[in-house]
Amino acid sequence: MAGAWWSGDCAVLSREHAERAEARQACLTKPPGALGRLETLAVELAAMQARDRPRAARVPVLLFAADHGVVAQGVSAFPAEVTVQMLANFAAGGAAIAVLARELGLPLHLRDVGTLAEGPVPGATVDKPCRGTRDLSAEAAMDAVEVAHVLEAGRRAVDEAGQDADLLLLGEMGIGNTTPASALACALAALPADGLVGAGTGLDDARIEGKQRVIERALALHGGAIAAAPTPALEALRRVGGLEIAAMAGAMVAAAQRGVPVLVDGFIVSAAALVAVGLNPGVRDWLLFSHCSAERGHARLLEALDATPLLRLDLRLGEGSGAALALPLLRLACALHNDMATFEEAAVAGASPA
Amino acid sequence: MAGAWWSGDCAVLSREHAERAEARQACLTKPPGALGRLETLAVELAAMQARDRPRAARVPVLLFAADHGVVAQGVSAFPAEVTVQMLANFAAGGAAIAVLARELGLPLHLRDVGTLAEGPVPGATVDKPCRGTRDLSAEAAMDAVEVAHVLEAGRRAVDEAGQDADLLLLGEMGIGNTTPASALACALAALPADGLVGAGTGLDDARIEGKQRVIERALALHGGAIAAAPTPALEALRRVGGLEIAAMAGAMVAAAQRGVPVLVDGFIVSAAALVAVGLNPGVRDWLLFSHCSAERGHARLLEALDATPLLRLDLRLGEGSGAALALPLLRLACALHNDMATFEEAAVAGASPA
Repeated sequence: MAGAWWSGDCAVLSREHAERAEARQACLTKPPGALGRLETLAVELAAMQARDRPRAARVPVLLFAADHGVVAQGVSAFPAEVTVQMLANFAAGGAAIAVLARELGLPLHLRDVGTLAEGPVPGATVDKPCRGTRDLSAEAAMDAVEVAHVLEAGRRAVDEAGQDADLLLLGEMGIGNTTPASALACALAALPADGLVGAGTGLDDARIEGKQRVIERALALHGGAIAAAPTPALEALRRVGGLEIAAMAGAMVAAAQRGVPVLVDGFIVSAAALVAVGLNPGVRDWLLFSHCSAERGHARLLEALDATPLLRLDLRLGEGSGAALALPLLRLACALHNDMATFEEAAVAGASPA
Repeated sequence: MAGAWWSGDCAVLSREHAERAEARQACLTKPPGALGRLETLAVELAAMQARDRPRAARVPVLLFAADHGVVAQGVSAFPAEVTVQMLANFAAGGAAIAVLARELGLPLHLRDVGTLAEGPVPGATVDKPCRGTRDLSAEAAMDAVEVAHVLEAGRRAVDEAGQDADLLLLGEMGIGNTTPASALACALAALPADGLVGAGTGLDDARIEGKQRVIERALALHGGAIAAAPTPALEALRRVGGLEIAAMAGAMVAAAQRGVPVLVDGFIVSAAALVAVGLNPGVRDWLLFSHCSAERGHARLLEALDATPLLRLDLRLGEGSGAALALPLLRLACALHNDMATFEEAAVAGASPA
């Protein structure tokens, strides 16, 4: 797939704006470095946005929903029909991400990229190659046409809903999707399934073990072909991935190509990030990481991505909820960077000689 | 000082509201526990506020400023006049806490409880027993009249500015105040100065060592009298504390007595919390902890208070800035608790049988 759209160049960070932002931070009325991560966040956003005054005002949430054939193997605490029911709950405003989007003033765009729904769910845009994936523990989850379609569905979502965005939040809904996410982490970051596979929406220990065996079976079936493929990330995505994960990977590549930062949510979105960076390493520069979740494998997946998340609050919900919860930190980092007085403006003395 | 106002009963948490809040969390459209710390935060606030719908809308910031005689020993990277200059910067809107208060809609109340300023700083209420403390490494920082006055100054601030507050944020400004805060932590939590004393606003290693020796000298001078006192917290506050630390301790006791939760900021406010809990153990129930700072001793001070902070962002600014940065998490925890749909309302299926 050399020459595919997703291997096209990503935008380049503005070194000049990063330097100016660092210089400004050094002049603001606080001891140098005293705002810790908030300072580096402001500098990173300035470099991404090529702006002297970074901002996180216009932040659409792109939420991708899909179903997973592997749910037949008993890998989730909830039945598959919950994916579509929750999609309706997002549209009706009752789900966590809907509440957060309302509170934070974020437009919430719902994309059905592969649920089992036969018709459209009111409030969600349908852009799907198929209804659910095949069971990845028995065969490839998608074929080449399906995976190409759904990667483009991610790009289309960015083009339709991401215009003029300061930043994008990506969210997901898909009963069973910690299984493909775990399989992708194992296949692409060379992590063992043991100790990585977690409770998802709430499995007990016996069922976590069963889920681990399902993933090990999938890796035994597909591992060789993934390793031998010209683009392992693409082959892993097709064989053991998921439709919403592919759409998010496509959205990340498109955002990075257009120079729009993405605030990454939890375990599933991080797995999509691993795929996106595998498809196009330039994507990494455009990712900010919101939180480390309670899902067992997330800390190791973040390590593999060389990511230091902002929050650690034992979240394990998905939907983009962790990214939304971290967004106020980005907004406040911008406000501090843009609106604080300098030592000179405020006539405050600097550090005294030692 | 038995019978002093600060030993009067604190308000009692509503167990009934905590139970109802827990029951509600279990019905919301998410896997049980999936919102992690946000769920426990909402339950804690419901219990503190005795409300079915907890809230963090009206949140005044009480910011106490004072100066420290021990600055003569070279314990700070900044000269003492910066305390008053920053107080003016708070009033003018250019300091970090002023920017954050504006962004978050928090009334900012400035209280000069002991700066070196001879006259009033425009925008700040003056309520001080003296201009700065004495050098705690050579003599007691305050006398009994001064400490009683400034504890009451904290209570007065709560009564004047904390009316109808859902929650209080306390902040501080005082060049040199990590020295009394460290000394209080050593004296009251039995922590060794070695490994606890940190860089404050930005000392190098040699000056940190000098600061540690100053604190060790103070502890050698005052330690016996503190340990022998009927209320060690009060004696430690008087001998090695600071005026703004005392005012915050008084404000915490008053808030707990009136049933108003307090969101604790960084190292200095945590030292004040240690004093407040020492004066009146019932205060602890009313404290929420916002962040663990980069100041070396803060993690150990939080441990001594049995506190698990929300954020860990390498902040070390003070002013109440870390508490302000954590406030959106409390607000969003309330929104999620109050506004999410239940499984029944949204017609979403529950967990499937194993």
